[in-house]
Amino acid sequence: MFKECIENVRKKTPLIHNITNYVTVNDVANALLACGASPIMSDDWEEVEEITSLCDGLSINIGTLNKNTIPSMFLAGKKANELKHKVLLDPVGAGASKLRTDTAVKLMKEVKFNAIRGNISEIKALALGRGNTKGVDANVADMVTEDSLNNAVDFVKTFAKEAGCIVAVTGAIDLVTDGNQCYVIRNGRAEMGKITGTGCQLSAIMTAFLVANPDRELEAAAAAVCTMGLAGEIGWSNMQPSEGNSTYRNRIIDAIYKMDGEMLEKGARYEIR
Amino acid sequence: MFKECIENVRKKTPLIHNITNYVTVNDVANALLACGASPIMSDDWEEVEEITSLCDGLSINIGTLNKNTIPSMFLAGKKANELKHKVLLDPVGAGASKLRTDTAVKLMKEVKFNAIRGNISEIKALALGRGNTKGVDANVADMVTEDSLNNAVDFVKTFAKEAGCIVAVTGAIDLVTDGNQCYVIRNGRAEMGKITGTGCQLSAIMTAFLVANPDRELEAAAAAVCTMGLAGEIGWSNMQPSEGNSTYRNRIIDAIYKMDGEMLEKGARYEIR
Amino acid sequence: MFKECIENVRKKTPLIHNITNYVTVNDVANALLACGASPIMSDDWEEVEEITSLCDGLSINIGTLNKNTIPSMFLAGKKANELKHKVLLDPVGAGASKLRTDTAVKLMKEVKFNAIRGNISEIKALALGRGNTKGVDANVADMVTEDSLNNAVDFVKTFAKEAGCIVAVTGAIDLVTDGNQCYVIRNGRAEMGKITGTGCQLSAIMTAFLVANPDRELEAAAAAVCTMGLAGEIGWSNMQPSEGNSTYRNRIIDAIYKMDGEMLEKGARYEIR
Repeated sequence: MFKECIENVRKKTPLIHNITNYVTVNDVANALLACGASPIMSDDWEEVEEITSLCDGLSINIGTLNKNTIPSMFLAGKKANELKHKVLLDPVGAGASKLRTDTAVKLMKEVKFNAIRGNISEIKALALGRGNTKGVDANVADMVTEDSLNNAVDFVKTFAKEAGCIVAVTGAIDLVTDGNQCYVIRNGRAEMGKITGTGCQLSAIMTAFLVANPDRELEAAAAAVCTMGLAGEIGWSNMQPSEGNSTYRNRIIDAIYKMDGEMLEKGARYEIR
Repeated sequence: MFKECIENVRKKTPLIHNITNYVTVNDVANALLACGASPIMSDDWEEVEEITSLCDGLSINIGTLNKNTIPSMFLAGKKANELKHKVLLDPVGAGASKLRTDTAVKLMKEVKFNAIRGNISEIKALALGRGNTKGVDANVADMVTEDSLNNAVDFVKTFAKEAGCIVAVTGAIDLVTDGNQCYVIRNGRAEMGKITGTGCQLSAIMTAFLVANPDRELEAAAAAVCTMGLAGEIGWSNMQPSEGNSTYRNRIIDAIYKMDGEMLEKGARYEIR
Repeated sequence: MFKECIENVRKKTPLIHNITNYVTVNDVANALLACGASPIMSDDWEEVEEITSLCDGLSINIGTLNKNTIPSMFLAGKKANELKHKVLLDPVGAGASKLRTDTAVKLMKEVKFNAIRGNISEIKALALGRGNTKGVDANVADMVTEDSLNNAVDFVKTFAKEAGCIVAVTGAIDLVTDGNQCYVIRNGRAEMGKITGTGCQLSAIMTAFLVANPDRELEAAAAAVCTMGLAGEIGWSNMQPSEGNSTYRNRIIDAIYKMDGEMLEKGARYEIR
């Protein structure tokens, strides 16, 4: 039940350590607060192990990675593994530079992630970046559409099996899989693509959902995706004629803030393949 | 009169140098503009002394401190002292890592602050971090409530005397003291805790209030706290049913922007102990 | 026709690489999305050349420059030049520190810019920082007013000729020149000065306009300035009585999002000198 997934976040108020980019960090913090979690941002190598030890989960987002923060991602990730905290990777821009692809791939090798969330191009870059991974179709179309859906589901399931964790690919249609089952989610609106940071926010929220629902990670990850998508729909329904993407950004976080279990249960639109 | 405190900020438009975190920095800048001050953000050690020399006050916030910005905090702080500028410390997360506690404690030793603003846990960490400071009750409850108020006032007064500056502890009840008098302030709303950055904004605004009211620092600091809390109340009164924490964030800064001396004087709720 | 300038941005959706400050970066990203472009932020020297190669234009903003990002500005700028991408400089705070002035002046020497956008004081600092530049009147008033307009136009034209690129000076009256013609623009509202980041947003948007209109750079730059100013006017007209600078920030970006060619053509207020 997605209902319980979000209710557990609000009940347990997990503290999430974010090593994240400076573009969307404020929205990430407010989105975590909106869903009932608490954010801490910290990225200096000297303190990240200590900070992550205080927290319940860790979200690593490479959106504006740099020489100072990359080592912190590894240190925090390993410490979080040691403590059996939930850890999520958002490989922002993997495929756009060697630094991003290599960092993400190396993180996947050295840190055990509970979930990876990205768009289809980023996930494809990770899959290819890992070498001639068997079963990965390099021809998978970059956009998940109704036409490419079957192939995309296969690709994501295969990648999740290889990665050994939940993989969430978000876009027009969202896919969330543990390698066996795949949630195919049709919440959200195209206009969300005109706001920076909805993906980053989702990654942080997903980490909180995983922490608060440790025994049903796949369902929790899917519930987080539906929460974000549904918030996009509700936020849009509250838009006034003069409003554009900047206000929409606020209305989406507001909708997360207002979301309860019943609303999520009722509004979630998904099938399982 | 709090009225004059805010009016002086609007009249003098002090330029405030902020060495601050990247999470809430945009809101800090807009909050300073909202109260009539001007922001400059700069944290490279090569320029901070020069930048702070152009300014009227300095606000040091350790929220995302790192190896590059820590030396800048010391350089800027010492230069500001030399120039007799008002300097404030916001020890974000002191107590959460050795790096934060040590940096804040060392800043307190090497820089003369006019004010320190934090939550009770941060202030407690500073008090304990300074060693077995006499008179500091390590058992002071972390939340300032009506029940723990007397103890908290005593603790904060003692700490302010030792620190030799104004100390503002914000939370459900806010305390602002110079070690002798303590303003006990009951403005604000609990929902402000669901927004990232209201504390950071207050620290920056408080710096502007100190600069603009050099001869009555305690009153100015208390006026800043009441301004923020009252803006939280007014912002809340403007909320529409569909709105949540993201819009609330805007409405609070908007309310600071609209605040005049009469409103502050009338809306401030405090007693002096 | 300004109409076509903005329509080309929406049609071509240029991808803009931003090396920018952490204060206004989120608004910059959303403003780019609002006008129809796409943002990428990246500032680590190891990846900036690769990232800028994927993009269509580069906007360099020195607002929170530091030891790590300065080398990236040079690397990205030179690579963008090599690829004949449009490159813009926003010399935030030039004149406020030696580091800023020197960095901006050195960038102008080593990177070929298509446009420089700043306020009059920043542009003056660049002009003086270049040495005893002939024809630059050090006495040009810092504010461009109707009274100082003739002198200011002369100064900006001279500077543009020397810099060999378009120069946009924004303030109460905006000037955009290639050294020969000068657009004198009277869109915008004074209240925009009470929001952090409208200048940064404009620089990024201007880069997108230059990319999408390669054969008429001057007109494109002027159209970008009018877009921002007109959005300020429209955003203001949508303000509710309780709203202040934080909501105004959103309303301006919203107005960019809603702006079409007809609105821009009709609302642009300028003369050419």
